[in-house]
Amino acid sequence: MRSATAFAPATVSNVGCGFDVLGFALERPGDEVTARIVPGVQGIVSIADITGDDGRLPLEASRNTAGVAVRALLAAVGHGQSIALTIRKGLPLASGLGGSAASAVAAVVAVDAVLGMAAPRDLLIACALEGERVGAGSSHPDNVAPCLCGGFVLVRHPHPLDIVQLPVPAGLTAVVVHPALEIETAKARALLGDTVPLADAIRQWANLGAFVDGLHRSDFALIGRAIEDAIAEPRRAALLPGLAEIKRAAIDAGALGSGLSGSGPSLFALCRDRDSADRVAAAMTAAVRERIGGEVQSYVSAIASAGAQVTAICAS
Amino acid sequence: MRSATAFAPATVSNVGCGFDVLGFALERPGDEVTARIVPGVQGIVSIADITGDDGRLPLEASRNTAGVAVRALLAAVGHGQSIALTIRKGLPLASGLGGSAASAVAAVVAVDAVLGMAAPRDLLIACALEGERVGAGSSHPDNVAPCLCGGFVLVRHPHPLDIVQLPVPAGLTAVVVHPALEIETAKARALLGDTVPLADAIRQWANLGAFVDGLHRSDFALIGRAIEDAIAEPRRAALLPGLAEIKRAAIDAGALGSGLSGSGPSLFALCRDRDSADRVAAAMTAAVRERIGGEVQSYVSAIASAGAQVTAICAS
Repeated sequence: MRSATAFAPATVSNVGCGFDVLGFALERPGDEVTARIVPGVQGIVSIADITGDDGRLPLEASRNTAGVAVRALLAAVGHGQSIALTIRKGLPLASGLGGSAASAVAAVVAVDAVLGMAAPRDLLIACALEGERVGAGSSHPDNVAPCLCGGFVLVRHPHPLDIVQLPVPAGLTAVVVHPALEIETAKARALLGDTVPLADAIRQWANLGAFVDGLHRSDFALIGRAIEDAIAEPRRAALLPGLAEIKRAAIDAGALGSGLSGSGPSLFALCRDRDSADRVAAAMTAAVRERIGGEVQSYVSAIASAGAQVTAICAS
Repeated sequence: MRSATAFAPATVSNVGCGFDVLGFALERPGDEVTARIVPGVQGIVSIADITGDDGRLPLEASRNTAGVAVRALLAAVGHGQSIALTIRKGLPLASGLGGSAASAVAAVVAVDAVLGMAAPRDLLIACALEGERVGAGSSHPDNVAPCLCGGFVLVRHPHPLDIVQLPVPAGLTAVVVHPALEIETAKARALLGDTVPLADAIRQWANLGAFVDGLHRSDFALIGRAIEDAIAEPRRAALLPGLAEIKRAAIDAGALGSGLSGSGPSLFALCRDRDSADRVAAAMTAAVRERIGGEVQSYVSAIASAGAQVTAICAS
């Protein structure tokens, strides 16, 4: 049975001042999806197996992120093959690390490869967004786009999709820590309200403009000054006990800046090099243990230069 | 009597998606200020003469933009000399082209030169802002900073001042048309209110991030897509009859984008080269004549690579 396997990485969305529009991809961890062509029957997408989810994700394709994304892709290109998906979750569920995006992206990339379609990038993104909407309750181009493309991605406009790939300064390294907490995305969103003070909004766009300039110039000091989120984080701080102290620990250990990943509970930090990132990861982990307790997962990764990738194609 | 003369250019602030934080400088027109050391008496700043203002600007130094800026500068450095200023207004008053900023900047640059101070850039900006507050009723770092520095300037933070000089793509040319209208800045500001819809604000920072990327990459198409102002212009459109049609005329003639300069009544457009800018200037001028009538001044200028400059020093 012809098959293809694709890996799609964790992503940090809502990066600081780039609420709802800026995300970046890690190199690891991530999700892996294998797509197999099922001969005979036509037009059926099924989930053969899921591992790494503790049995929490639905095997029914119409309720599964990867299943819905693949159905959308096959419908868009008018392809009649039946596909069976095997999903290996490397990302913790509901962590704020773009797990739904990663499964959806890995699935469409694997199907694109196994069917030899070479579908346009924006179509793959659009189909992955369909899937993510089922898995996460809403769709986040600032997870899906960097997951597919790698690096820092700015979503200038969601519909029609207009994304901008930003440069990644040499050395820039991400830290992510994942406390054992769950935060409902819908609750986090509700805290924001529908309007914001104009003065806060002005600060936010000034910061995002400067952040983009900092990426282009590899100006780490400017990246650090500009990353501050004037909108979402102050209004969501109560969702994560000790947020200010954990961020303070990151800065004191040498981070350029830090914030919530997505709508949390994970936190990210950006650092100028790997050594700094290792120190920051240790400091943030200790702060999370002290303030929140429970298990803490931490990741240190270069910003991924590439996004989702086909890792295996099997012809027989 | 030792003297120095400085020229400071017109500036466009509130550039599209960069409301309150993004401005750029033209090469011409601008204001010119001559500062003369007055021997004998100590610590007096006076306005010797003003031309080009039709007698509308105050000769009293404490009420004059240039006078207040120079007083602030002398106070900051503890300099006791008396200075007499001669101001030649090249910019129309209340045009939205940063006329108050230009007079204030030219004055501090001239005084800095005549006294051989080489004062820090941020001090000159801070003193010019003091002056501008008197002349314009409020201070606009996104006029003063590009006026002093040239090019595109992003004001990441006003206090403490943190400005970012952005690159200017080769060829990028500005058009400014000035209709015979007056718009009160305070009234324009009041139309904005204190809060804005979060969805509009998100669009604005996505656009500003993309605009900065477009400047760095010389991506004219992206600059054109990203320049759109989702916040101020829609709420201020009623201040300028025919705004939508004038903007449409600019785009149809080949402009990358256009908008109000400052809080109007002038409009700017950005164009990919001089030929395109000449066509756009003609089209915008015709549209302003048709929709607003009266006299129309128009300017076509490269984005200035340098800002305010000393044009003459006279030792005797």
